[in-house]
Amino acid sequence: MNHTIEMSDETLKNSIYSLCTVPNGRAHGGSFAHRGELRQAKRIVVKLGSAVVTRGDECGLALGRLASIVEQVAMLQNQGREMMIVTSGAVAFGKQRLRHEILLSQSVRQALHSGQNQLKDMSLPVLEARACAAAGQSGLMALYEAMFTQYSTCTAQVLVTNLDFHDDQKRQNLNSTLQELLRMNIVPIINTNDAVVPPPEPNSDLQGVNVISIKDNDSLAARLAVEMKADLLIALSDVEGLYNSPPGTDDAKLIDIFYPGDQQSITYGTKSRVGIGGMEAKVKAALWALQGGTSVVIANGTHPKVTGHVITDIVEGKKVGTFFSEIKPAGPTVEQQTEMARNSGRTLASLHPDQRSEIICQLAELLTEKKEEILAANKMDMDLAVSAGHLPPAMLKRLSLSPAKLNSLAIGLRQIAVASQDSVGRVLRRTRVAHNLELEQITVPIGVLLVIFEARPDCLPQVSALAIASGNALLLKGGKEAANTNRVLHQLTQEALSMHGVREAVQLVSTREEVEDLCRLDKMIDLIIPRGSSQLVRDIQRAAKGIPVLGHSEGICHVYVDADASVDKVIKIVRDSKCDYPAACNAMETLLIHRDILRTPLFDQIIDMLRTERVKIHAGPRFASYLTFSPSEAKSLRTEYGDLECCMEVVDSMQDAVDHIHKYGSSHTDVIITENEDTAEQFLQQLDSACVFWNTSSRFADGYRFGLGAEVGISTARIHARGPVGLEGLLTTKWVLRGDGHTAADFSEHGTMKYLHENLPVGQPLAGRRDSN
Amino acid sequence: MNHTIEMSDETLKNSIYSLCTVPNGRAHGGSFAHRGELRQAKRIVVKLGSAVVTRGDECGLALGRLASIVEQVAMLQNQGREMMIVTSGAVAFGKQRLRHEILLSQSVRQALHSGQNQLKDMSLPVLEARACAAAGQSGLMALYEAMFTQYSTCTAQVLVTNLDFHDDQKRQNLNSTLQELLRMNIVPIINTNDAVVPPPEPNSDLQGVNVISIKDNDSLAARLAVEMKADLLIALSDVEGLYNSPPGTDDAKLIDIFYPGDQQSITYGTKSRVGIGGMEAKVKAALWALQGGTSVVIANGTHPKVTGHVITDIVEGKKVGTFFSEIKPAGPTVEQQTEMARNSGRTLASLHPDQRSEIICQLAELLTEKKEEILAANKMDMDLAVSAGHLPPAMLKRLSLSPAKLNSLAIGLRQIAVASQDSVGRVLRRTRVAHNLELEQITVPIGVLLVIFEARPDCLPQVSALAIASGNALLLKGGKEAANTNRVLHQLTQEALSMHGVREAVQLVSTREEVEDLCRLDKMIDLIIPRGSSQLVRDIQRAAKGIPVLGHSEGICHVYVDADASVDKVIKIVRDSKCDYPAACNAMETLLIHRDILRTPLFDQIIDMLRTERVKIHAGPRFASYLTFSPSEAKSLRTEYGDLECCMEVVDSMQDAVDHIHKYGSSHTDVIITENEDTAEQFLQQLDSACVFWNTSSRFADGYRFGLGAEVGISTARIHARGPVGLEGLLTTKWVLRGDGHTAADFSEHGTMKYLHENLPVGQPLAGRRDSN
Repeated sequence: MNHTIEMSDETLKNSIYSLCTVPNGRAHGGSFAHRGELRQAKRIVVKLGSAVVTRGDECGLALGRLASIVEQVAMLQNQGREMMIVTSGAVAFGKQRLRHEILLSQSVRQALHSGQNQLKDMSLPVLEARACAAAGQSGLMALYEAMFTQYSTCTAQVLVTNLDFHDDQKRQNLNSTLQELLRMNIVPIINTNDAVVPPPEPNSDLQGVNVISIKDNDSLAARLAVEMKADLLIALSDVEGLYNSPPGTDDAKLIDIFYPGDQQSITYGTKSRVGIGGMEAKVKAALWALQGGTSVVIANGTHPKVTGHVITDIVEGKKVGTFFSEIKPAGPTVEQQTEMARNSGRTLASLHPDQRSEIICQLAELLTEKKEEILAANKMDMDLAVSAGHLPPAMLKRLSLSPAKLNSLAIGLRQIAVASQDSVGRVLRRTRVAHNLELEQITVPIGVLLVIFEARPDCLPQVSALAIASGNALLLKGGKEAANTNRVLHQLTQEALSMHGVREAVQLVSTREEVEDLCRLDKMIDLIIPRGSSQLVRDIQRAAKGIPVLGHSEGICHVYVDADASVDKVIKIVRDSKCDYPAACNAMETLLIHRDILRTPLFDQIIDMLRTERVKIHAGPRFASYLTFSPSEAKSLRTEYGDLECCMEVVDSMQDAVDHIHKYGSSHTDVIITENEDTAEQFLQQLDSACVFWNTSSRFADGYRFGLGAEVGISTARIHARGPVGLEGLLTTKWVLRGDGHTAADFSEHGTMKYLHENLPVGQPLAGRRDSN
Repeated sequence: MNHTIEMSDETLKNSIYSLCTVPNGRAHGGSFAHRGELRQAKRIVVKLGSAVVTRGDECGLALGRLASIVEQVAMLQNQGREMMIVTSGAVAFGKQRLRHEILLSQSVRQALHSGQNQLKDMSLPVLEARACAAAGQSGLMALYEAMFTQYSTCTAQVLVTNLDFHDDQKRQNLNSTLQELLRMNIVPIINTNDAVVPPPEPNSDLQGVNVISIKDNDSLAARLAVEMKADLLIALSDVEGLYNSPPGTDDAKLIDIFYPGDQQSITYGTKSRVGIGGMEAKVKAALWALQGGTSVVIANGTHPKVTGHVITDIVEGKKVGTFFSEIKPAGPTVEQQTEMARNSGRTLASLHPDQRSEIICQLAELLTEKKEEILAANKMDMDLAVSAGHLPPAMLKRLSLSPAKLNSLAIGLRQIAVASQDSVGRVLRRTRVAHNLELEQITVPIGVLLVIFEARPDCLPQVSALAIASGNALLLKGGKEAANTNRVLHQLTQEALSMHGVREAVQLVSTREEVEDLCRLDKMIDLIIPRGSSQLVRDIQRAAKGIPVLGHSEGICHVYVDADASVDKVIKIVRDSKCDYPAACNAMETLLIHRDILRTPLFDQIIDMLRTERVKIHAGPRFASYLTFSPSEAKSLRTEYGDLECCMEVVDSMQDAVDHIHKYGSSHTDVIITENEDTAEQFLQQLDSACVFWNTSSRFADGYRFGLGAEVGISTARIHARGPVGLEGLLTTKWVLRGDGHTAADFSEHGTMKYLHENLPVGQPLAGRRDSN
């Protein structure tokens, strides 16, 4: 094998990285319209503020952080992108180095003079910035090079000064040098030549649009990004992004997307709060770059938990820091939608129950009235799905609406309208605390719900009706497949809501929003309800840090066949539990049989039935040991097959069955089949699951079948709602206390009052309450 | 300044690091008894498996991970510890390097022959391990050196072979070289000289105790740690630690602490599951080191989220990986305690209500009967606290028990005993779903509670009684200050519990356990209730990923004085709300006054009263703008002062007050003072807080004052319990369905049954239910 030195790096790059999708950059020039487009960024400038490069913990340097940034840049480079780094930190880097040298020599002096450890008293001399820069530059570059080498990525050092940008010829030279480096798949690492140039004066204004001067690395990076026609500039420092007010003040909110026109809405803090350069300077540099056609994201590169993927997250379009965009989208942001929903939701909650009921009935009307419109939109979704061809038939079936489906939907809505009469404001408890001091506990809405549903558009009016009935504000996030249908259904919902002035209480979130980003709105959303596959539920439970999630991640349901079971019931119930709808969460996954049933006719009948129904059996270890020729052994007794498969295991007794279920179950729904009432009651009492059934199919674990009306889901949590959840699960309570100048001191040892704590009937009407005392 | 080369590194180290506490290592030789002692480890060997050094993501190398490991080692070294690294990875490192070289030359050949990109078809040749080792060694060492240099830490490369340990003279040479390096504050980086020695045969057994052969880096590290009398060996690879069964199987549990005698209880998986060397070899090496007097922790060094602090966490005694200890503690582990509590708790829940009530009464008895014993233990705690002298007087007061306190405690317990009669098993809803198919929703305990309380030992019997009354298992974690009192009180609780065979349902967790570690038992604990300062609550809410926490982190309560307020009530209520107990969460933090009240006699009276009570006023921005001489402006309208301080702000109307509270409040407790009933009812209706009061002090937001009996805390969550929480908050529900062979299919379109969904009265007795149909 010969290494040919003349071989260009370009060829090598193309051959080695041909497996990766090379992004195509901005097709038509100009900045990207939204974060999702950032995946297309080909040429990217990453600007590392000095805090990112040098601010460490006890050790002074954040080597791990820098290494993971290098890792990300190398990875993006290896995807075929053209990465450039603008780095600060030489000054701080040199400071660290010089300080160590000084300490060393001081300690030597000290050791010679006293032999005592008096380091605390030693004062460090003031270090001159340019000396530090000179001392730091080589070390910083060596570090970058050593790190990039590990990824087989070449780097080149480029030091620039003001003059390089002011002089046209020099600028062109710089430009062609950088172009050539990029062409050769080399990552240029750019810094100001601080050793020969005075250190930047922080915070002086940037000048004009075309003659931005290099006062700090923010403006240098912006200048460079525009000069090099970069698609994206990622500016990392130690701030999260741009806030509407100085961070730490009461109303400060991180801005997700900033538009040039929004500049008036920002209050900048004093410079000291956001470090050298100040946020205002950063924003000006960003806007300058944006105007030059480069998209910009300002983000925090020092946060230990996210630094390892901050750059790749930004390039993947995730909501990190502040994205600068020239194109303002027509609609409100999801934060604004949540705010609108909460405000309108409060009005909704204060309506008379009849009014909420009217809204729901009106929505039911509209479903019939605007049938054509809905079905036309649904046809568009169906056509798209069919032509795309990636939806499985079951999903297509769920996506499609029909006049019959709309009809039964309307009927269901009218039932919810009836149920809604008695939901909000119901008095649960009344207590006369003392003379003229009366306490009530009443039901109130939870607040703002986020419901995430997959390809089933009929979810939308159903969930909306439940939210309206319970006085909750609602954010809806539907599947992309049903986008057109959902839009029409949401318009109708808002039309119904507007009859009582609460149009904005139900919001449809753009399909472009990532579920993960929605889950981060933890101060704005009170409860998340995922409606869909158990995978969806699991994903959301993982993502929703801090927001409660109502749902069940697993449904490992058991049917236990007792020694005293009736043959007919066993066959009926086991068949229904497993085969009625095997993918449902309340389908049986494990069949437990009492030891005495083995080798009886009943046992044979069970096996025959499962065989006829084409249910694949996996044997538990004990069951397998009883058989001469055992079916495949179950990999785990904790499996949710969700298909025509189940595990079979043998137990010694009802008690043994309970122990097995406690050990391997998911506390969803578990069934006993027996004719012995004592055994049954023992099982029902001892078993710690959300639903415990005797002689019925596990498939009854369902809000509608339970008679709760509509269902928002099934919960396996132990807190709040458990099992199938109806309207009740969307309510919480508040305590209302009405007094007459009562104070806690009145009831103290020396006070004049005594607690009565009389329970009052909850049915008593509110009016005239006071007079009755 | 002169650099004196003869200056020893030892002196330099002592002078530079004198600020750090230098750990003293093992005082008496032998391994450490528990994780907490690991902080004392002076000499530490960190072994990095090849997975840690070389397993990366897309780029092949995990540079960021390695850098953060270097960062931690350097930090520990700078604390005055003596760190050694045993590193694998040269082979893999070299593989990576050689592969790149080969690709390069292949692509050159390809370019010469075709000019096409056909990289996919190129097969990589098999690389010889020893060649890889030779190619990798220099790069690996250069990388370590470059990284450690950033922390001003010197490294030295030490390559060893089998012979170095077998030959006594060579072993002594190696020993004295390493000792000298450590003395000079240099981090030795040790690897097997793989280029000259055959690559290790994986999985062959280690031999004997004293002649352990170097087959892999695990045994090398163990050998070295013992030879160098290291205090601690940290072995990092890509497994979490030692499991009792192969990871991934149903019952696999990570072992927190492993004792040599436990070896029989472990089932090892096939070697392929845990990588080269296998877990069995790792354990043998660890036990060998342990026998030689070195403590060992096996942990995962590849987990992206924890690698950045895995080594420092281990040295800080946190529960990471598996800790090998020779000394088996007398009591059960906290995991075993939780398991015991859950099992015993299930029996507790199935007792008759009278039996639970009896247990609580018995505990009340014991508090009086064993008074002397309790007070003696309490005196020990008090004496210790007084002599330590760091507890503030308020804390001391809470710590101390008296006969009177015990008496009222006993009275409270008897009240709980009464309330317990109607808690578990109460029927909340009964529905006749269909003929012979009846559904009940009944109350059941939540499961296992973890209650964390600070210096108040009277919490223990109170919380225990609440848990017993609600049939819950309980883990108690009390403050260190009350350790003696808590122990006695817990013994009495168990004594009472044992009268019905549920002694283990209430467990006292050792004070040594970290709250953070308890919060990680998310599969075993169902609800955490922190009782103590709001700081404690916040800390636990942060730590408890996945387990619900019942509590309130903030109490920013408002009192709004309406234009129509009565003077007397205003003065009484504002004084009580702020001054009765300013540190309480239900104390007023912000006083909102209607604009019309400004400059009225009422306003002057309020100000006078606050002045008399020495309440410091902070002005809100609007309030400040109305005054000529304003008090200091409030830094934030969202402050919980918790002291004789409050914020005052002006609002235009009741509606404005509601908006202010929604914006800045914490939804805890908010009060309106007005004589206008309409205004009051509007306020009570609109305000979205857990407690909304009219003409009474905010201090009534309390379980006892509400008449709930004892209180487990106040919740500001919207899910589950809200406001003051009594027994109800410790209950959840389950659904019991009793049928007669019913299946879902019976109710389908072609089925024979129809849903009835009749609500039945909940009071109807259970017995004879079936016959009545």
